[in-house]
Amino acid sequence: MALSAELGRSGDPAEAEPTPVRVALLGCGTVGSEVARLLTEEAAEFTARAGAPVELAGIAVRRPDKHPELPADLLTSDVEGLIASDVDVVVELVGGIEPARSWLLTALRSGKSVVTANKALLADCSRELSEAADASGADLYYEAAVAGAIPLVRPLRESLAGDRITRVMGIVNGTTNYILSAMDSTGAGYVDTLEEASNLGYAEADPTADVDGYDAASKAAILASLAFHTRIAASDVYREGIGSVSAADVAAAKMIGRTVKLLAICERVVGPDGSESVSVRVHPVMIPRSHQLAGVGGAFNAVYVEADGAGELMFFGQGAGGAPTASAVLGDLVDVARNRAGGGRGPRESAHAGLGVRPMGETPTRYHISLQVADRPGVLAQVSQVFAKHDVSIAAVRQRDKHSTASLVVVTHAAPDAALRATVDDIGELDVVHEVVSVMRVEGEDS
Amino acid sequence: MALSAELGRSGDPAEAEPTPVRVALLGCGTVGSEVARLLTEEAAEFTARAGAPVELAGIAVRRPDKHPELPADLLTSDVEGLIASDVDVVVELVGGIEPARSWLLTALRSGKSVVTANKALLADCSRELSEAADASGADLYYEAAVAGAIPLVRPLRESLAGDRITRVMGIVNGTTNYILSAMDSTGAGYVDTLEEASNLGYAEADPTADVDGYDAASKAAILASLAFHTRIAASDVYREGIGSVSAADVAAAKMIGRTVKLLAICERVVGPDGSESVSVRVHPVMIPRSHQLAGVGGAFNAVYVEADGAGELMFFGQGAGGAPTASAVLGDLVDVARNRAGGGRGPRESAHAGLGVRPMGETPTRYHISLQVADRPGVLAQVSQVFAKHDVSIAAVRQRDKHSTASLVVVTHAAPDAALRATVDDIGELDVVHEVVSVMRVEGEDS
Repeated sequence: MALSAELGRSGDPAEAEPTPVRVALLGCGTVGSEVARLLTEEAAEFTARAGAPVELAGIAVRRPDKHPELPADLLTSDVEGLIASDVDVVVELVGGIEPARSWLLTALRSGKSVVTANKALLADCSRELSEAADASGADLYYEAAVAGAIPLVRPLRESLAGDRITRVMGIVNGTTNYILSAMDSTGAGYVDTLEEASNLGYAEADPTADVDGYDAASKAAILASLAFHTRIAASDVYREGIGSVSAADVAAAKMIGRTVKLLAICERVVGPDGSESVSVRVHPVMIPRSHQLAGVGGAFNAVYVEADGAGELMFFGQGAGGAPTASAVLGDLVDVARNRAGGGRGPRESAHAGLGVRPMGETPTRYHISLQVADRPGVLAQVSQVFAKHDVSIAAVRQRDKHSTASLVVVTHAAPDAALRATVDDIGELDVVHEVVSVMRVEGEDS
Repeated sequence: MALSAELGRSGDPAEAEPTPVRVALLGCGTVGSEVARLLTEEAAEFTARAGAPVELAGIAVRRPDKHPELPADLLTSDVEGLIASDVDVVVELVGGIEPARSWLLTALRSGKSVVTANKALLADCSRELSEAADASGADLYYEAAVAGAIPLVRPLRESLAGDRITRVMGIVNGTTNYILSAMDSTGAGYVDTLEEASNLGYAEADPTADVDGYDAASKAAILASLAFHTRIAASDVYREGIGSVSAADVAAAKMIGRTVKLLAICERVVGPDGSESVSVRVHPVMIPRSHQLAGVGGAFNAVYVEADGAGELMFFGQGAGGAPTASAVLGDLVDVARNRAGGGRGPRESAHAGLGVRPMGETPTRYHISLQVADRPGVLAQVSQVFAKHDVSIAAVRQRDKHSTASLVVVTHAAPDAALRATVDDIGELDVVHEVVSVMRVEGEDS
């Protein structure tokens, strides 16, 4: 096939036409209809870029009669039949685990390449899927599954393939970032802000997947798997959503020159004996306002990468939406078509490192703790003793008087997360502590 | 070879070993020695990632006796002999056009893949090189040639292959960015700041390639070629360096909430008849301080991309230095080795669009012009008339009195660059204009 592609590229009409790459599209919502539109309207451009015509062979939808805007002869409700027909690539935009998983395994096992935007499926079933792809020599591409149009899969899997990545930290969910940005600028609470975000269309009617961090956890699993050459499933990811972030937390962050973000954090952790493991977690974090990620507002996504050789890298862009997601899907589709036309195969997954996942309790983190305490001497000594008991070292303390109570803000050095949580529990029991106002993990050094 | 790679990956020692990928390294300075060190020390890791052992077969240096730190049996001064030996990949870190060009053409023509960090060569000879690669089926990779470790080649060539890129705008030279950042924060002039940058090691002894924009122009040519599927050579790039940026320019930018950056700007320009061409240029620009690129300080690089589907994307990181450049080279090398082991080939160049290059004079730009004018009525009328004569529309005017002269700042709407330059020339001739204090192009809307 390489020869015909070569000839096709030369543009001489007398030469043999390259064999078209036939595409099955599963699902035709916002993203799918954009993919279908561009494949049809820009056919010549896709042929030139891929080295062979990229032909839409069929579109599987639940109710073909509901899509008068699409060519009737392409529409079908028979997904299995479409996959079994003479298509070369299956583009899956249905979402969810089943039946998407079975469909894609069938496709991959019969040597058909797959392009998918399905982050939940990738996070849960990447081993099965990539083993099926490896066994038949098919391609499995999923740039659209992480942070929409922001190129992350290729940079992590290929550009940094010669480097040692130590950390990937990112804002990978637009809904929660919109809500936290709004809380930061208005001072409003979580419930009101979520309601406003829903009214404006920035949050789904059922926002659970976003606000409870499930969406971010799936993306964290995919990013960590790529970065550390290790299979990480969504269930390996420690997860806290933003539902417990209060106006007091946001105000407390402001007081110390920080802002609250929901971050996906994937870290290589080196133990005292030199052994390596991986910590993957999604939770709200206070980061310095001077941090690269602090300025990422609204529905944008950004991912920050640290590697031994490359140093600091950041990738920024739109993490969701029909057009950006379609862009990522089509980029993958051109690559897969190029591989088909050229007779090669894209880079496969590499899980050779097989690092263990460090439990959250053993993961080193840093806490910010804001307290209302009795305004009398000796309080700091009592509070400090609790930290010392749990072997947690204090980085900074700020005390302020206010009527009969005083506020006390503590930022710790890194300690195992379990020790920090136990410290917070014990501090809440102290008589001199009137109220634990805000507890949140911090990342990034103060500038 | 695919089968043996597959077996190698399974890790069973009883199965056949995959054929090693043999690498010739040309040049062993800061980047080369880092590449050699990592290939040797991390051999097992590279084998796992590439699917086959990546073996350093030889290192060509001018004076082998000057490199006691390297294994003597690998060193040679016979570059042609090393390329002609049984190597699979040639990594070129020598720089310059000749003899690098001849060496790489020889390698590619004999089917050996090439990884290079040579931006000047890529910008001048990409057609020859990629034709040679296509003819023999070899790979040509050059991530390190643009913005060091920041992944740009794969995102532009692959991730965005299904999108329509409209603009690539970036800070791609660390030396000039360091100098302009320093001028902005200290208010010092160009000559003093350059001297300080040299003393601190941020500027070369002969800084011409950096400060005159040659380095940025090479990178602009590479970026534009990838973004617009069109061959753009360095000679197609309009180029102005930072030597003429004065303390007055930097101060004038501050006055209007902007900062001065040396930008590489690659734009798709659509003419009134709908025909497309490409504008590629490197020159100092005033951008709003709120712009994504404004916060990129010191020796960092950042590239901002706009595409129809993906929207706005930004890539940020270290653009130079031994370790970051080695990271990019090794990422390419792993990909090339994977392709060898898997029997495939990476994506090739695509120059099918063949868009024309728009001359700078016809490129729409916007100017900031700061004048000292006579402090009397009617001056603005006279100045405005000159703009009108050249069909240049004014976006904003700011007037301020100061003793017997007044300052007048004009920011224009977009107009052909030649008309703007002619306007500036004519304005300088007016009796009421005492001094043209600062003239500079602007990009980005005021927030």
